[in-house]
Amino acid sequence: MSERRGLLIILSSPSGAGKSTLARKLRDWDASLQFSISATTRKPRVGETDAKDYYFVSEDDFRKYVNEGEMLEHARVFNNYYGSPKGPVQKAIDNGRDVLFDVDWQGAQQISNSSLKQHVLSIFILPPSIRELRRRLETRGQDDQDTIALRMEKSWDEISHWDGYDYVLVNDDLVDTEARLKAIITAERLRLSQQPKLVDHVRALQAEFEETK
Amino acid sequence: MSERRGLLIILSSPSGAGKSTLARKLRDWDASLQFSISATTRKPRVGETDAKDYYFVSEDDFRKYVNEGEMLEHARVFNNYYGSPKGPVQKAIDNGRDVLFDVDWQGAQQISNSSLKQHVLSIFILPPSIRELRRRLETRGQDDQDTIALRMEKSWDEISHWDGYDYVLVNDDLVDTEARLKAIITAERLRLSQQPKLVDHVRALQAEFEETK
Repeated sequence: MSERRGLLIILSSPSGAGKSTLARKLRDWDASLQFSISATTRKPRVGETDAKDYYFVSEDDFRKYVNEGEMLEHARVFNNYYGSPKGPVQKAIDNGRDVLFDVDWQGAQQISNSSLKQHVLSIFILPPSIRELRRRLETRGQDDQDTIALRMEKSWDEISHWDGYDYVLVNDDLVDTEARLKAIITAERLRLSQQPKLVDHVRALQAEFEETK
Repeated sequence: MSERRGLLIILSSPSGAGKSTLARKLRDWDASLQFSISATTRKPRVGETDAKDYYFVSEDDFRKYVNEGEMLEHARVFNNYYGSPKGPVQKAIDNGRDVLFDVDWQGAQQISNSSLKQHVLSIFILPPSIRELRRRLETRGQDDQDTIALRMEKSWDEISHWDGYDYVLVNDDLVDTEARLKAIITAERLRLSQQPKLVDHVRALQAEFEETK
């Protein structure tokens, strides 16, 4: 067993609140952080690699994983299923590596109620204003007004579930928010439940105490 | 109501593990941190000031406070009672100030089960070794060998309750431990339960969203 147990770090936010940028900054800070790879029943697109972009699985296999409790969360999007397989996450945290999840509030809720809930750390990033959120969506320049209106509806749905998370940050300054995220992760790694090896240290203290008294 | 709610920060450790030094460092870091002042039924000594060193109270009053749930924790030591009154702590946290408690594991347990438990952050400091703990007690030079043996017994009793805390740190390097403590406090201030004003921010976002859609 590793010195410390890894965390399941859930980062949720409406799109445009800075989540992807922050996730990259965390990865730059600690290269051992890994992103959770989703399983999906949709077909791979050109250039996508199995076990890197997604785990591509059949619908039968996907259902079997869900029934066996091997999915930490899952959802159906149009005609395809998406989910977070437990196996690789369990392996990572046993090896002391944290796993980052980019999921919406429904995924966050499912992971927070999963069999690994003891090791979950969930963080919600709020935008400073709706105007700022819309501005960021518009400056991406990818979408027409109808699509942006739809995205804004989706963003509001996401924001309205802000209070189901352990920590909530308002991203009004990227540098501040990054520092806060790092403090949260640094702290959570020091929780009793994340340090399975501490019991050995205390046993050594006890032995030493018995010897010398 | 203050922007954020204060925390009840419990710092426990055997004596000699560096707790007092660390408490001072935290106070230097954030002058708004206040130390909890105990109530006691013992008589004031020369130079002690009421409401600064202790709240000096009668035994009748002390019992009344306990019965009315106005003590977050209390204990009898020889013929005197000691305890942490809730009133000043409640006032501090409502004003967004954190309160630091220097209590043993029994006090920590009582505070962690008190009516303010939602805002409690408990940290245990372990020594790197028993040898180091003994060395620190001996270099204080205040005590004879029998007293040191007694203190070591008391220290072991304290260490044996290490696993009842939220966070556990091994103080093998004072600079590291100080940085970790600061990260824990910085993080815990960002918990949903510590940010009562965030609901106003989300209401403002909602109003803005409704207006602009």
